[in-house]
Amino acid sequence: MLSKNKIKWIRSLEWKKFRKEEESFLAEGRKLVGDLLGHFDCRLLVATEEWYASHPTAQADERIVVDREELSRASLLKAPQEVLAVFRQPSYVCAPEVMLDELCLALDDVQDPGNLGTIVRIADWFGIRHIFCSPATADLYNPKTVQATMGAMARVQLHYGPLVPLLEDLPAEVPVYGTFLDGDDLYAQPLSAAGLIVMGNEGNGISAEVARHINRRLLIPNYPKGAPTSESLNVAVATAVVCAEFRRTVSR
Amino acid sequence: MLSKNKIKWIRSLEWKKFRKEEESFLAEGRKLVGDLLGHFDCRLLVATEEWYASHPTAQADERIVVDREELSRASLLKAPQEVLAVFRQPSYVCAPEVMLDELCLALDDVQDPGNLGTIVRIADWFGIRHIFCSPATADLYNPKTVQATMGAMARVQLHYGPLVPLLEDLPAEVPVYGTFLDGDDLYAQPLSAAGLIVMGNEGNGISAEVARHINRRLLIPNYPKGAPTSESLNVAVATAVVCAEFRRTVSR
Repeated sequence: MLSKNKIKWIRSLEWKKFRKEEESFLAEGRKLVGDLLGHFDCRLLVATEEWYASHPTAQADERIVVDREELSRASLLKAPQEVLAVFRQPSYVCAPEVMLDELCLALDDVQDPGNLGTIVRIADWFGIRHIFCSPATADLYNPKTVQATMGAMARVQLHYGPLVPLLEDLPAEVPVYGTFLDGDDLYAQPLSAAGLIVMGNEGNGISAEVARHINRRLLIPNYPKGAPTSESLNVAVATAVVCAEFRRTVSR
Repeated sequence: MLSKNKIKWIRSLEWKKFRKEEESFLAEGRKLVGDLLGHFDCRLLVATEEWYASHPTAQADERIVVDREELSRASLLKAPQEVLAVFRQPSYVCAPEVMLDELCLALDDVQDPGNLGTIVRIADWFGIRHIFCSPATADLYNPKTVQATMGAMARVQLHYGPLVPLLEDLPAEVPVYGTFLDGDDLYAQPLSAAGLIVMGNEGNGISAEVARHINRRLLIPNYPKGAPTSESLNVAVATAVVCAEFRRTVSR
């Protein structure tokens, strides 16, 4: 049985204020919950009997059995599946020196939750484990973002904080890449196996203060070069093309 | 003045049935409407005085002046801007033989309107002018798709129809590419300047009937190869990585 208060508490996790207070987030669906269990502390499981039967070892502080109708009252999805879970937000610690050894991403105010989720999925695909996010970047724990990561958030760590001090304190040998419409052809540059790639806001790109710290300015060339075209690619799409090229050249 | 009937008519274009009956579609916003005017027949313009003042040559069968409050009653957007327009759907004719000379895309049931809009924008960036869409692919003229194309739909033509007969009738020398999780490394293949790239449904990929006609099976390798990772990339993201690689190798 799911009490009214419990439903209210679950649904409040749609709002960042409550997610912060509770240091928790909501995930829904058989595949996603299955991917996140074991990676994050589970505070609450709300699922059908069939789900529990097929997941006998699933651990949570509290487990509630519901039918589908009850579940749909707590769900934020249009088409609720047989399980939802509330997880504790993890706290990660990551020294910026990781960029000496690994390729990392930084997001300068990426605002759309769906774009952020897609970028986390891209990072996972291309073996990028750390994403540094400006404070105005969409919240990873927004339920829309959580769903869009398709489970990739179990393997990629996001670190929120101002980017300028981070960039100011970086060891000088860390290459800092960014994409600009007047940058240099991505395919004519030496790309490194470690360093930082900065991606900007959907409408305004990379902010001036952050851009000052970028020492390798890249452009994804359109085709044929100079043809009239869209003014830009979607930020998640651009992230994918750039990451694919970094990994292609390094793994040859 | 915007009559109740006119508002109802405009808003009815959210629905495919009405868009088909009216052979029309809705576009909103200064930038998008500006990009589409001159490319599509404009049936109706609804805009503020300031917008008309800055677009003195804008042609339409009917022009209505409104204030922002009136505009918001007709708008489907959360944050309506100063103009919306209803355009006539164009009718394109395209012989499949175009694939002998140009790189084209085919979409096998891409269902999300946002993904479709993003793919149109990607096609435009990479100089792909024709996209062949299965009947169950999202409708280009869905207002969400129109907005997501960011104007790229002015330069890319979409052709809806069953893919299997199209593929059956292709000249044998047209290479037909598709991405599969068990395909061959994208970066170890010769890629051509003309031909067809098939992208599949978000959940199920390329259908078996279509897959039978694909003679070059591609995989976007993850990094490091074989690492545990997300099961797949978003379809628009995969389209971008594949198109970028085709254009990179051809333009070298």
